[in-house]
Amino acid sequence: MRIAVFAGDGIGPEVTEQAVRVLEKLGLEALDLVEGDVGGAAYRKHGHPLPAETLDIARSADAILFGAVGDFSLDHLDRHLRPEQAVLGLRKELGLFANLRPARVFKGLEDLTTLRPEVASQIDLLIVRELNGDVYFGEKGTRTLPDGRRQGWDMMSYAEDEVRRIAHTGFTAAMGRSKKLCSVDKANVLETSQLWRDVVIEVSKEYPEVELSHMYVDNAAMQLVKNPGQFDVIVTGNLFGDILSDQASMCVGSIGLLASASLAEGTYGLYEPIHGSAPDIAGKNLANPMATILSAAMLLRHSFGLEEQAVRIENAVAAALAAGVKGGDLGGSAGTREIGGAVVERL
Amino acid sequence: MRIAVFAGDGIGPEVTEQAVRVLEKLGLEALDLVEGDVGGAAYRKHGHPLPAETLDIARSADAILFGAVGDFSLDHLDRHLRPEQAVLGLRKELGLFANLRPARVFKGLEDLTTLRPEVASQIDLLIVRELNGDVYFGEKGTRTLPDGRRQGWDMMSYAEDEVRRIAHTGFTAAMGRSKKLCSVDKANVLETSQLWRDVVIEVSKEYPEVELSHMYVDNAAMQLVKNPGQFDVIVTGNLFGDILSDQASMCVGSIGLLASASLAEGTYGLYEPIHGSAPDIAGKNLANPMATILSAAMLLRHSFGLEEQAVRIENAVAAALAAGVKGGDLGGSAGTREIGGAVVERL
Ligand SMILES: CC(C)[C@H](C(=O)O)[C@@H](O)C(=O)O
Ligand SMILES: CC(C)[C@H](C(=O)O)[C@@H](O)C(=O)O
Repeated sequence: MRIAVFAGDGIGPEVTEQAVRVLEKLGLEALDLVEGDVGGAAYRKHGHPLPAETLDIARSADAILFGAVGDFSLDHLDRHLRPEQAVLGLRKELGLFANLRPARVFKGLEDLTTLRPEVASQIDLLIVRELNGDVYFGEKGTRTLPDGRRQGWDMMSYAEDEVRRIAHTGFTAAMGRSKKLCSVDKANVLETSQLWRDVVIEVSKEYPEVELSHMYVDNAAMQLVKNPGQFDVIVTGNLFGDILSDQASMCVGSIGLLASASLAEGTYGLYEPIHGSAPDIAGKNLANPMATILSAAMLLRHSFGLEEQAVRIENAVAAALAAGVKGGDLGGSAGTREIGGAVVERL
Repeated sequence: MRIAVFAGDGIGPEVTEQAVRVLEKLGLEALDLVEGDVGGAAYRKHGHPLPAETLDIARSADAILFGAVGDFSLDHLDRHLRPEQAVLGLRKELGLFANLRPARVFKGLEDLTTLRPEVASQIDLLIVRELNGDVYFGEKGTRTLPDGRRQGWDMMSYAEDEVRRIAHTGFTAAMGRSKKLCSVDKANVLETSQLWRDVVIEVSKEYPEVELSHMYVDNAAMQLVKNPGQFDVIVTGNLFGDILSDQASMCVGSIGLLASASLAEGTYGLYEPIHGSAPDIAGKNLANPMATILSAAMLLRHSFGLEEQAVRIENAVAAALAAGVKGGDLGGSAGTREIGGAVVERL
């Protein structure tokens, strides 16, 4: 059970520290944790946000527990050297093609969202976002046109196997939930989306029990405001998924509680909180580590099949919340270490 | 004052009819209205959603009042024959490069949104969306890769002059409002966005009074949920603008009241409600024509400089609302014609 721990920047180190405490407390015999540098921290030490050593560590592990990357003071660097490239590099190099982003409002925390409580309390959805294709990884560049104008360009594309693979992830997730899948695209404008839609329909034949619907991305952004409770599983491409999953998370309000998984084929995965590196509160014992702790639970479940231990962690977090142990982001005053301790105690 | 009236599909004809009543009631001497077919209605009559005749009428006019297009029963057609292509064709053929989408919560209508009233009441923003470039109008297609896989692809790009032009629209709009402009892109991933950002910064030098900020599109989608009141003018590309402007509209709740303008260089423009063709309620005197009536006000203001008449219309709509004349979408029971009549009465 080799787990790579990539803490990263800002609050990354302190929140992963607490998740590691939780993992260690479980007393799993084969647990083998190995640290690696990513993001701005790695750039400062090795001159690259995703050094070869880090990739080697990732490849030698069975799963990655990830903190956060991002450092405004490195914004002047060339894009390929900026902290966020660590995320993109890991996704591509390790074939992490499926991003799972559950969003639901925790009982008793309905007040944290800007949505009306009766709307927010209906939210219980899962966004399945493709992570290895789309306009993210196509050819791109800046060129000077024959008439002298500068132009920036990026190629958007999906091939049928890329769509098929994520569609299966979406349908499988839907089978384990309410058997409703909504595929989001922009097929009225994009050929990429038309192919996406055609392939999703092909794959749907293998899941006759799942009710498939299609929605344009602009309408999906509207419907997430109007009636987010209508969604169960959403499957979509890399770019639309980036936008919609962040919108959906904010509808839940408590960003400090949301975990995510980025999965490869097989059991390999990277697990991380959805929040960023929050440099403004870094090192102050103010960050809420619960999202990272819940990411560790996802890790045990997906990468190691340790359902029981995953549930233990989730229950401990819920119990700590119920006992009023809340970070500043949830309107409480518990510090990072205190929250970690409260979860460990309740395991 | 030649105005092309393109009513389109679904509820398009009935809502434009009421807007025309309002325009006629103003007693403008030079008013010359000319109708044309667009969308599914045009396809059925002429075999194309944007027939050459319609384009000729558009070109002969000074502005277009547009209803709505969209007809699910034509979804099986090739993309270039579907009703929505009329919109894209008009934008491109007439150089309508700047889409202005104001969104604010009308006093007394704070209850229509799913956002908490104290959050919703802060919304008063304008989205300036580029309409002639981006992945919408780049080369695109479906191809078979050498290894036999099908791939859908679309080229995303912006050239510097395209960005400069819409940036000026954004800064000019900001000068007329609170002098805050937020440019939304995805410069951490896209070269198109990096060029966008560079050019927006160049243009900002000409508007030293405007405070410019940049935001990634995923964060913008979050911030529109968390604190939409923070925004004044947002300027963004075609694809991100499509998504964010619909999200912002739904935050306002009363879609039936939101108008939009799509402007060319000079005074030419197309004006339309942001709602769609709503085939389910078409022809039943159930649609709310206020958004189209308010679009007519925008038309008088932007294309003809008739500020006074525009304000008269806007005040008449506000007065009708204040008197409780509300369509079903606003929780009322007034019919399409009744609402049109109520506005005309109050002019
Ligand atoms: C940091 C950035 C490149 C990344 C993305 O756009 O995928 C982030 O927003 C995310 O969603 O994980
Ligand atoms: C109909 C469609 C092509 C169009 C767009 O995506 O621009 C619509 O969503 C809009 O925003 O006007």
